[in-house]
Amino acid sequence: MRATTIHAPGDIRVEEVADPTITAPTDAIVKVTAGCICGSDLWPYRGHNDITPGDTIGHECVGVVEEVGSEVSDFKPGDFVIVPFDHCDNTCVHCVAGMHSGCVNLGFTASGQAEYALVTQANGSLVKTDGMPDKDLIPSLLTLSDVMATGWHAAVTAGVRPGGTAVVVGDGAVGLCGVLAAVQLGAERVIAMSRHEPRQAIARQFGATHVVAERGKEASARVAEITDGVGADAVLECVGTNDAIRTAFAVARPGATVGFVGVPHDVELPVRKMFQKNIGLAGGMAPVRKYLPELLDLTLSGRINPGLVFDLTLPLDQAPEGYRAMDERRAIKVLLEP
Amino acid sequence: MRATTIHAPGDIRVEEVADPTITAPTDAIVKVTAGCICGSDLWPYRGHNDITPGDTIGHECVGVVEEVGSEVSDFKPGDFVIVPFDHCDNTCVHCVAGMHSGCVNLGFTASGQAEYALVTQANGSLVKTDGMPDKDLIPSLLTLSDVMATGWHAAVTAGVRPGGTAVVVGDGAVGLCGVLAAVQLGAERVIAMSRHEPRQAIARQFGATHVVAERGKEASARVAEITDGVGADAVLECVGTNDAIRTAFAVARPGATVGFVGVPHDVELPVRKMFQKNIGLAGGMAPVRKYLPELLDLTLSGRINPGLVFDLTLPLDQAPEGYRAMDERRAIKVLLEP
Repeated sequence: MRATTIHAPGDIRVEEVADPTITAPTDAIVKVTAGCICGSDLWPYRGHNDITPGDTIGHECVGVVEEVGSEVSDFKPGDFVIVPFDHCDNTCVHCVAGMHSGCVNLGFTASGQAEYALVTQANGSLVKTDGMPDKDLIPSLLTLSDVMATGWHAAVTAGVRPGGTAVVVGDGAVGLCGVLAAVQLGAERVIAMSRHEPRQAIARQFGATHVVAERGKEASARVAEITDGVGADAVLECVGTNDAIRTAFAVARPGATVGFVGVPHDVELPVRKMFQKNIGLAGGMAPVRKYLPELLDLTLSGRINPGLVFDLTLPLDQAPEGYRAMDERRAIKVLLEP
Repeated sequence: MRATTIHAPGDIRVEEVADPTITAPTDAIVKVTAGCICGSDLWPYRGHNDITPGDTIGHECVGVVEEVGSEVSDFKPGDFVIVPFDHCDNTCVHCVAGMHSGCVNLGFTASGQAEYALVTQANGSLVKTDGMPDKDLIPSLLTLSDVMATGWHAAVTAGVRPGGTAVVVGDGAVGLCGVLAAVQLGAERVIAMSRHEPRQAIARQFGATHVVAERGKEASARVAEITDGVGADAVLECVGTNDAIRTAFAVARPGATVGFVGVPHDVELPVRKMFQKNIGLAGGMAPVRKYLPELLDLTLSGRINPGLVFDLTLPLDQAPEGYRAMDERRAIKVLLEP
C-alpha cells in the first residue's frame, strides 16, 4: 500500500510499504477514507523525538472495515468506523473505570496517513456509524479519532463546569477543539489564547467569548483583567511546552485545575506554586473510546462541527507538503485523502 | 508572654516575648489552651528553611478568646475556639469557592506554641464550641487547627470515594490523619505505608486495612499485589520529599489522583509518567476553615478521634524537648500546654 513514512527530521515520503495483516484474532484492517497530520507528528518531524527511518507515521483516521480477525464480532467488512488513535479492549479494569488510554491491551494506529490501518483491539476500539456518512461529515468524524477527543479530555480533566471561566492555552487544532469542548461543557467565559487571526476566527466560531493575543506575563495580566482579578476556574493546556505550562499555571485561580493534553517536552512543573495555590494538574493521553459515543452523537446531530480545524486538504501523495504547511504554520491541520 | 522561639537550626527556646495586640478591627487574641508541634516546624529546625533568629514558631492551637477587635461580631471573650493555622475572611471570592487557603486576606498563626496567639481574620477563621469542651476532647480538637484538616484535604483532593482503594504515603501525624480521612470518606481498602510499629498501630486503629512496611520499588510491588495489579484509585502524599512523591505516583493506577499536602522540598514531578498514565496531582495548603464545621461535628460526636496522634504531652517550657523527640522520631506529635 501507499503510506506516509519518515526517514529523518524533515524527510517525509509517501511510498509503497507492506500492507498491514491480521495477526491476532482481535485485529481488524480499515481502508482509510481520510487521515490527517497531528501536531504531535511535528515533534519527530522537527527532530525532537527519535525516528526509526522508514517507519510509517500518522495515527488519526476514519475508514471502512476491510477485514476482521476471528474474534471481532461487532464489526464486519463495509462498516464505516472511527479509529481511536489509542486502541483498547474496552473491557479491562482500566477501561471499565473510563481510563481507556491505560488499557492493559493498549495499542496505537501506526499508519493513519496511508491506504490501510491496522486496529489491534477492533471490538473494543472502533465505533461505527449507521451506513456511510455524508461526505461533508468526514472531516468532523475524522477529528474524533484524536484531536477533538483530546480537546474534550483537556476540558473534562480541567474540570470545566457550567457557568465557569475556562482558558485555553494553545491555538493549534487541539486547542481549538478544547474551546469547542469548554463551550459544550457549559463554560460561560471561554478565553482562547491566540495571536493568529485565522485561528482566532475559528476559536470565536467555536464559541470563545474572549481572545487574548498577548503572551507570557501580559497574557496573565489580560486574563486577570477579564476575570476581575480572580483567574480561570479551568485551564486547558494544549501545547506541551514549558512556556505553555507556565502560562497555564499563571492564569489559574487558587483551587483550579490545569488539564494538560499536549505531550510534555522539557516541562518542569511549578510544584511550589501548585502547592501554595492549590492548583491541580490532570489529563494526559486521551481515552478516546470513552468519549466517542457522546462526541459522535454531538457530531452527527450537527451540534459540533470540529472539522473546521482542517484548513487544508491534500491527496495522500502530497503528505510532505502537508507537513511543511503545518510546520510553517501555514495550515492549522491537514487532511489527507488516500 | 512565654512563647516558643527559634534562633538557629536545632535552637528552640521558650522565652518572654511581647504579647500580641489587636491592631486591626478584624483581629482577635486567643489564650492558648493547647498548642502543638507540626512536622513542618521540623523543616526550619533541621535547617532546611530560612530562619529569622528569635521569631516565634508554631501555628496550631485551640484556646479561649481573650480580646476581639471592633469588627469581630461572632466571637467574644470566653468563647472556646479552634484556630485554623491559615486565617481567612470566609467571604472573598476564593473562600466562597471553598478555597479558603487562597483567601485574599490570608494570614497565619504565628505563636501557636505560646500563651497567646493573634488571629488576623477572626470572624472568618474561628469556629467555636458550645461552652468549654471536655478536657479529653482537647487533643482531637487541637488537630482540627491543621493536621486533621490537612489529612482530610489530602483525601478529598486525591478523590477518595466509597468503595475505592486509597494509599497513604507518610506515617507522620498528617499521614495518620489521612488514613482516618480516607476511611471516613468510604474507601474500602486503605493502605498505610509505615515501617514504625507504634505508627502502624495507630494507622490500624484509624481503620487502615493494610500496612506496607516496604519502601521504594518493593512498596509499589506490595501495593500491586494487594490491588491485583491495578494500583490505587487515590493516593495521599503526606510527606513532601521527592522519594514520597515518587512512591505516590508509582502506586497510582491510570486515571488516579495524588492528593499532596506535604510542603514540597526538592521535589521534581514525573511529568511524563503523569501524562502517560493520566495520573493527576491536586492538593496543597489545606483550606482548614472549609472543613471545620464537618470535622468539628465528627469529633464532638466521637466518630473520629484524631487526638490519638499525640503520643507526648509536655508543658510549654519543655518545647525544646518536644522538638528533639519529634526530630528523632521518638514522638509522632507533641502537644504543648502553656
